[in-house]
Amino acid sequence: MRTQVGIIGAGPAGLLLSHLLHLRGISSVVLERRSREYVERRVRAGVLEQGTVDTLVAAGVGERLLREGLPHRGIELRYGGAGHRIAFERLVPGRAITVYGQQEVVKDLIAARLAADGDVRFEVDDVAVHDIGTDRPYVTFGGGERLDCDVIAGCDGFHGVTRPSIPDGVLTAYEREYPFAWLGVLARVQPSAEELIYARTERGFALHSMRSPEVSRFYLQVPAGTDLADWPDERVWAELRTRLETVPGFSLATGEIFERGVTPMRSFVAEPMQYGRLYLAGDAAHIVPPTGAKGLNLAVADVRVLTGALARFYADGSAELLDGYSAACLKRVWRAQHFSWWMTTLLHTFDSDDAYGRRLQLSHLDYVTSSEAAAATLAENYVGLPYEDGDPAGP
Amino acid sequence: MRTQVGIIGAGPAGLLLSHLLHLRGISSVVLERRSREYVERRVRAGVLEQGTVDTLVAAGVGERLLREGLPHRGIELRYGGAGHRIAFERLVPGRAITVYGQQEVVKDLIAARLAADGDVRFEVDDVAVHDIGTDRPYVTFGGGERLDCDVIAGCDGFHGVTRPSIPDGVLTAYEREYPFAWLGVLARVQPSAEELIYARTERGFALHSMRSPEVSRFYLQVPAGTDLADWPDERVWAELRTRLETVPGFSLATGEIFERGVTPMRSFVAEPMQYGRLYLAGDAAHIVPPTGAKGLNLAVADVRVLTGALARFYADGSAELLDGYSAACLKRVWRAQHFSWWMTTLLHTFDSDDAYGRRLQLSHLDYVTSSEAAAATLAENYVGLPYEDGDPAGP
Repeated sequence: MRTQVGIIGAGPAGLLLSHLLHLRGISSVVLERRSREYVERRVRAGVLEQGTVDTLVAAGVGERLLREGLPHRGIELRYGGAGHRIAFERLVPGRAITVYGQQEVVKDLIAARLAADGDVRFEVDDVAVHDIGTDRPYVTFGGGERLDCDVIAGCDGFHGVTRPSIPDGVLTAYEREYPFAWLGVLARVQPSAEELIYARTERGFALHSMRSPEVSRFYLQVPAGTDLADWPDERVWAELRTRLETVPGFSLATGEIFERGVTPMRSFVAEPMQYGRLYLAGDAAHIVPPTGAKGLNLAVADVRVLTGALARFYADGSAELLDGYSAACLKRVWRAQHFSWWMTTLLHTFDSDDAYGRRLQLSHLDYVTSSEAAAATLAENYVGLPYEDGDPAGP
Repeated sequence: MRTQVGIIGAGPAGLLLSHLLHLRGISSVVLERRSREYVERRVRAGVLEQGTVDTLVAAGVGERLLREGLPHRGIELRYGGAGHRIAFERLVPGRAITVYGQQEVVKDLIAARLAADGDVRFEVDDVAVHDIGTDRPYVTFGGGERLDCDVIAGCDGFHGVTRPSIPDGVLTAYEREYPFAWLGVLARVQPSAEELIYARTERGFALHSMRSPEVSRFYLQVPAGTDLADWPDERVWAELRTRLETVPGFSLATGEIFERGVTPMRSFVAEPMQYGRLYLAGDAAHIVPPTGAKGLNLAVADVRVLTGALARFYADGSAELLDGYSAACLKRVWRAQHFSWWMTTLLHTFDSDDAYGRRLQLSHLDYVTSSEAAAATLAENYVGLPYEDGDPAGP
């Protein structure tokens, strides 16, 4: 079997890449270890940057997103007994975020690929990449199947097989772990506020979010290694109430919790994001703590760059943009790394922090919520800085 | 002997307070341990915020400052082989800094106090404050002299006698030490650039500054506990060259070094900044690392607040503003604490930083030098945020 671009992983990165390449007449095959049902139900991020929305809409996969997604023009920072709104409409006019679950993006992309007779294979075992250092790489999978291609895109996430296939010594890993995790739940209950609430308390961080007018999403900062079994529903609600019901008049509505999980917090970058004819995109190359809502958006930005580079490669044979892929991505990657670290340290409780550190954090919050310039730094990163290519319609 | 306000310390805080009180018809006596010559030669900060300049000018002690001070409308951040200007004229229109040595401010204030027959006493030994918890506090000094007063102002710096006079358990101290210090030199040489250069290198931070068109001021990040004896002139110049000559076309002019010192880096806040009839101002209450150039400016802000509170006290007997002195000061104090910590961590090399931390720092620098909003946060803090009272002419 032969294709132009072999794509490992049917998450948002792999599926969007396959779709964007299709729009440019470039063939691809997507190989995914999990079932279609699994990836369509996997709960992940839910905040899309303006540029992510623009990219999906321009690619013709934004119809349901525009219909069902919830545009938000601000978020609240809550601490010290008061809420402070970061007003996107004033700070970054014309830019907003859209609340729309990652798995919904995945569903839309799978539907689009299948509608175009795209080759997306689920439940594919034993994927391995070969000869990536040559211009004839190939992929093996299943019971001896082989996919020959010009290029391989590693879109298989942090724990995927592609990054470890790169020879030792090529990549430099930059990493930081945090001493806490996020316990996340989905609940069938109308959101208790119209916008996201990022709450900093002495007991730790909490986030009030939502997925739809009927489904709320909540996160609690918990110690790393927390066991879900220690968090029955009543404890989750009690802790959410304690951390969120800190301003007059705010009352948390509760409902049936139907999904729960613990997300570790990690910062990670592998450089360069490529080796030979293998190009890493999204979580395969970098991880951010979820506080800044950047993971999915960064994957989309990578895929835009990779699509442009591949389009050039197939248009005139020039590998110039492909050679510069990693460098072109890494500026935005490190911006998101810094922003995600910044949001995390701004809002979480660190056991290691002394009294000085805690006062510094509160002073920092006071500044972000009182200075237009400081609020604008949060807003412009949160809604997403412009792409380097400057073209919202895609590369 | 009796006065209304007994002021301990003839640094900028004590002298300015005495002068501002005089303008409002309130008497004071300033007691200083050192000689006049010593305090007039003590080399300290040299960057005045817009508000500090406005305060001194409005108080009639800005004539020489306006004549000899060097207004600067930007600073340079230098790293990664390039310089990046933070342009105050664009980011904070109408606000600038003025380079004018702290000891020049001290000279001007002493001259003004003496011209007005102010009582400023130098080389006063054995100062001690008494009965500060009552409304009849007094100061003893010298060979049994006694100064009775209504209020005592502790303007005697971090190592002064007033803060330790407050009973145990009243103050909370917030503190952070840094694993490095600044080695500072003054040299008789024309500055090599018109504006300040804050340089971040893998070998550590360096600052190119100046005091006049003929005198340059330089600082080098060195390990805490560094012995000046290990830094002969040639080593100082070689290290300055290595850290500053990192952009094409920049060459460091050298000259006779005539002053040198090592400044420890510490963050410190004592809360509250008052007890009974004792009010702490400036370094007596708080210390910042010098990176943000905030120490002197914060002292001036404290003194503005204290002057306003004392003016009210003597006008109608109300202690309302005096009672709120600490709370009124601390918002700005913590803003400066955060900004000074931020500038310090942005620009210094930390041995404890791993590879991830170093990349984070570079990403942060890239952001500050490419985002208008981020650059504006640096600029507005550096030139000084507006005073709470909003009146540039003083309280």
